[in-house]
Amino acid sequence: MPIFDFRVRPPYKGFLDTVLFKPGTPTVDLFTKRIGLPYPDSARARSVPDMLAEMDAAGIAKGLVVGRESGVYGSVSNADVIAFCREQGGRFLAAASIDPTRRKPCIAAIDQALKDGFIAINLEPGNYPVPMYTDDRRLYPIYAHCEDRGVPVLIQSGGLAGPDISYTSPVMIEHVCTDFPELKVVAVHGGWPWVHEIIHVAWRRPNLYLSPDVYLCGQTGVEEYVRAANGALARQFLFATTYPLCGFADYLARMRALPFKKEVLERFLWQNAEEVLGLAKS
Amino acid sequence: MPIFDFRVRPPYKGFLDTVLFKPGTPTVDLFTKRIGLPYPDSARARSVPDMLAEMDAAGIAKGLVVGRESGVYGSVSNADVIAFCREQGGRFLAAASIDPTRRKPCIAAIDQALKDGFIAINLEPGNYPVPMYTDDRRLYPIYAHCEDRGVPVLIQSGGLAGPDISYTSPVMIEHVCTDFPELKVVAVHGGWPWVHEIIHVAWRRPNLYLSPDVYLCGQTGVEEYVRAANGALARQFLFATTYPLCGFADYLARMRALPFKKEVLERFLWQNAEEVLGLAKS
Amino acid sequence: MPIFDFRVRPPYKGFLDTVLFKPGTPTVDLFTKRIGLPYPDSARARSVPDMLAEMDAAGIAKGLVVGRESGVYGSVSNADVIAFCREQGGRFLAAASIDPTRRKPCIAAIDQALKDGFIAINLEPGNYPVPMYTDDRRLYPIYAHCEDRGVPVLIQSGGLAGPDISYTSPVMIEHVCTDFPELKVVAVHGGWPWVHEIIHVAWRRPNLYLSPDVYLCGQTGVEEYVRAANGALARQFLFATTYPLCGFADYLARMRALPFKKEVLERFLWQNAEEVLGLAKS
Repeated sequence: MPIFDFRVRPPYKGFLDTVLFKPGTPTVDLFTKRIGLPYPDSARARSVPDMLAEMDAAGIAKGLVVGRESGVYGSVSNADVIAFCREQGGRFLAAASIDPTRRKPCIAAIDQALKDGFIAINLEPGNYPVPMYTDDRRLYPIYAHCEDRGVPVLIQSGGLAGPDISYTSPVMIEHVCTDFPELKVVAVHGGWPWVHEIIHVAWRRPNLYLSPDVYLCGQTGVEEYVRAANGALARQFLFATTYPLCGFADYLARMRALPFKKEVLERFLWQNAEEVLGLAKS
Repeated sequence: MPIFDFRVRPPYKGFLDTVLFKPGTPTVDLFTKRIGLPYPDSARARSVPDMLAEMDAAGIAKGLVVGRESGVYGSVSNADVIAFCREQGGRFLAAASIDPTRRKPCIAAIDQALKDGFIAINLEPGNYPVPMYTDDRRLYPIYAHCEDRGVPVLIQSGGLAGPDISYTSPVMIEHVCTDFPELKVVAVHGGWPWVHEIIHVAWRRPNLYLSPDVYLCGQTGVEEYVRAANGALARQFLFATTYPLCGFADYLARMRALPFKKEVLERFLWQNAEEVLGLAKS
Repeated sequence: MPIFDFRVRPPYKGFLDTVLFKPGTPTVDLFTKRIGLPYPDSARARSVPDMLAEMDAAGIAKGLVVGRESGVYGSVSNADVIAFCREQGGRFLAAASIDPTRRKPCIAAIDQALKDGFIAINLEPGNYPVPMYTDDRRLYPIYAHCEDRGVPVLIQSGGLAGPDISYTSPVMIEHVCTDFPELKVVAVHGGWPWVHEIIHVAWRRPNLYLSPDVYLCGQTGVEEYVRAANGALARQFLFATTYPLCGFADYLARMRALPFKKEVLERFLWQNAEEVLGLAKS
């Protein structure tokens, strides 16, 4: 059974300047201490070959590389993201991160990214110096543009998605899913902590995909996510390590220890990612 | 131990034109697939005698027939609802569905319904072409009218109660319960997915009754509902199959499998419904 | 292992006039019936010596006495609170309750309280005749004053913290924690019923402390609170009986029956309270 990791940040170029590769800082500690997994050796060594070896050892065949264009958490350029993916020759796919605060340059950046080979768009509306809510009207032309082109959108909409917990309120991503019914929307961080509520929204909105990533590790609500996946939401959950916040084998072992049904786990680990990204049909 | 089903929609006249009796449609599938129960044979056969036989077999003595007056989900006329109940000679009681968007005709419709033998009023504020929130001020004269007459109100306030999840926000039904303390308010769909929050509201507002119906079947939060029922909310939970979405025996078996205390289960299956509807005193 | 009780209301002077010492009233019944613990003998006898004996028997070494200055739930004067603490010679510490509705008298009352020996300030913004939300701008000068002086603030922000459930919405206390990052904020009643959400906020805001008190007794979400305490929030949970709503030994037995890790239980019962109140350094 192959595995697709929906959120990988390799130790490469611009990624190395981000806080993700600074273990021991409060931001990284906030996660690693809570999750209880060791910071990966390959990340500490800042070594791409070591990272690839760790992926191989864990049986993770493919990954989506997600950069960042965020005033609050810093940036990794799309150029670095696509360069990495090209170097690795097809093992990695690329999500382009964009600044949505100015419409015309943003639309141009999306068009350029699609020409360059990116297959998804990544947005963090709450993490700009002047944060936006997920359903801010200024984002609607961007969502429309992506829906018209069949491009899935990743939206940071759980966890630390903005200045306060209101930025993860589940009604906002429901608005997006409802108003753009053909847009595939990935809720990065799975809408946590609004566990019951996001499960309801995902049940009602089949174009919403949940990627709870670090919030499936020792966090409250884990059992409810798994129950939902085992029930009506089998095709809407995505496996994502958030490497380097979690090591590949360690995170995978945690997921295998959860009571997923066998066929649901297979979908979670591979098929759902293929469907969201439209890989099966290509 | 007799059983009272707080939400029955028989295969009769106007009900047959609703989506409920169109298995295989996306709306019905959304529920039946998640719930995991087979669509009832009697509903597939569109047969009232078969339905009655299924109720008998399950030991369900009585039922509340709830029609619908909703722009979004269609309508079943009060005439059809009361005709069915009269034909069945006392086994079924009737809730009248009304359009609350125009005050004077609505009040007149309530008065007429009470004359006609209806014993409860059913509202779906969020499912009109121009949806209203549960605590919309335009509903307040209607709530006042019902409170003054001792008529319980069923409010669609969980699940798909409006265009988005904001229509189930628990503060709204709390406003109604607080501002009309003698009005008996039934939260149809039990406030799901706001599980913890609606339990708090029900604990604080003894005139609120929870009828989680399909959301007690394999859904997240089931254990918390049962724990609350076994604790302070023993007299505030109602048994409702939502037939034809669930079959009588199948749904009942699911409820019996939940860890209700014996005396709580008895209240849930019968006594609470009698108290809400004022049957014990008549 | 000594134990610190973060919320004690002794049968003494003004406390005796409050509803807390009127068992059988609806307000007290609402709690005691749900919690399922007997009303303490010492409270029924209205006897301070009996209360002290019950504390001794339970091994509770110290307590924080919290009065009340609330239009809705009545008041206990700061004079009575500090008099009790002085009489008991160091076993009890005092939180001063203030009326935040007028800024200048409130600031003066805080300054006076600190001179008189109080070590924390207690606020119930939602329980005034004209209730305020926890993050009301009129409270911000008060929070600033306390932050500047290193005085922890107790905020009634869960349970019956105002006229309706909106007064416990978790974003409000997050605003306070974010805007006053050096202020120690105690969420009295632990943010219940917003269990998942307040756990998220506490994880993100290390200056937030959760005191779920009666809402750790047989209430929904208990397991999630304990899991969070056993994980990232070990230093942010406080033990509080809310005596006389719960008896000391009975409440403690309930807490010991929960699956806290040993070292987490020790922090919960003692060390966290010491740290919040700055006792360890004195």
